[in-house]
Amino acid sequence: MNNTIPEEYLDLLAWEKKAFAHLAIVLRDGAPHVTPVWFDYDGEYVIVNSALGRVKDKVLRRSGIAALAISDPDDPYRYIQIRGKVVEVTEQGAREMIDYLSKKYTGKSYQWYKGETRVTYRMLPQLVSGMG
Amino acid sequence: MNNTIPEEYLDLLAWEKKAFAHLAIVLRDGAPHVTPVWFDYDGEYVIVNSALGRVKDKVLRRSGIAALAISDPDDPYRYIQIRGKVVEVTEQGAREMIDYLSKKYTGKSYQWYKGETRVTYRMLPQLVSGMG
Repeated sequence: MNNTIPEEYLDLLAWEKKAFAHLAIVLRDGAPHVTPVWFDYDGEYVIVNSALGRVKDKVLRRSGIAALAISDPDDPYRYIQIRGKVVEVTEQGAREMIDYLSKKYTGKSYQWYKGETRVTYRMLPQLVSGMG
Repeated sequence: MNNTIPEEYLDLLAWEKKAFAHLAIVLRDGAPHVTPVWFDYDGEYVIVNSALGRVKDKVLRRSGIAALAISDPDDPYRYIQIRGKVVEVTEQGAREMIDYLSKKYTGKSYQWYKGETRVTYRMLPQLVSGMG
């Protein structure tokens, strides 16, 4: 395990692959929680986006840690596990970020915005391991 | 949220769908951990299988809790979240169970058995919620 993304798994994080990440967090009561999320990887940080006050927002701010599993949509036996250390939580540019992510996954800007305050989380990959 | 699988999401748990589950657990240091896994649902319990001494085995025995996200392979925006309370950890029939799961996903009995002690975990669904 290491703190960088092995080159042979970089394609899983690429824009063109459009892979979802399964983001796991630990709730206040100590229970795990996992949901599929959109993400981007800018070569250094894994970036996700949520909205102020949601479970993910509260937990990522409090705990500063998440785990991600990113499977190859073309081969479910090939995936990468990443522990993400939250190094930035920001509302700045977060509205643009959800549009950016939406374009990656849907080809269009974000259609479901209802005036919530969007938040962007930048995570530094740690304990990375690939499988398959 | 409720403790049963809503009827409209039962297809995600069906043998024919061959959906993977993303299983999240909480490690001893409090960090989350998530991996894709094979599973079965027998109408009452969500069943997964691992091997004695692995991370999943140790954590599921100790914590007694997991979270699962099961996405529709045909529509990634449709998924179900399940909190699973571990109600049984057993080696009995666990070798047969991994064959059973392997047949579900690969059509063949388990090809990677290397003499490890297989373990089956039965989890009672709690706090179930569907999306999409």
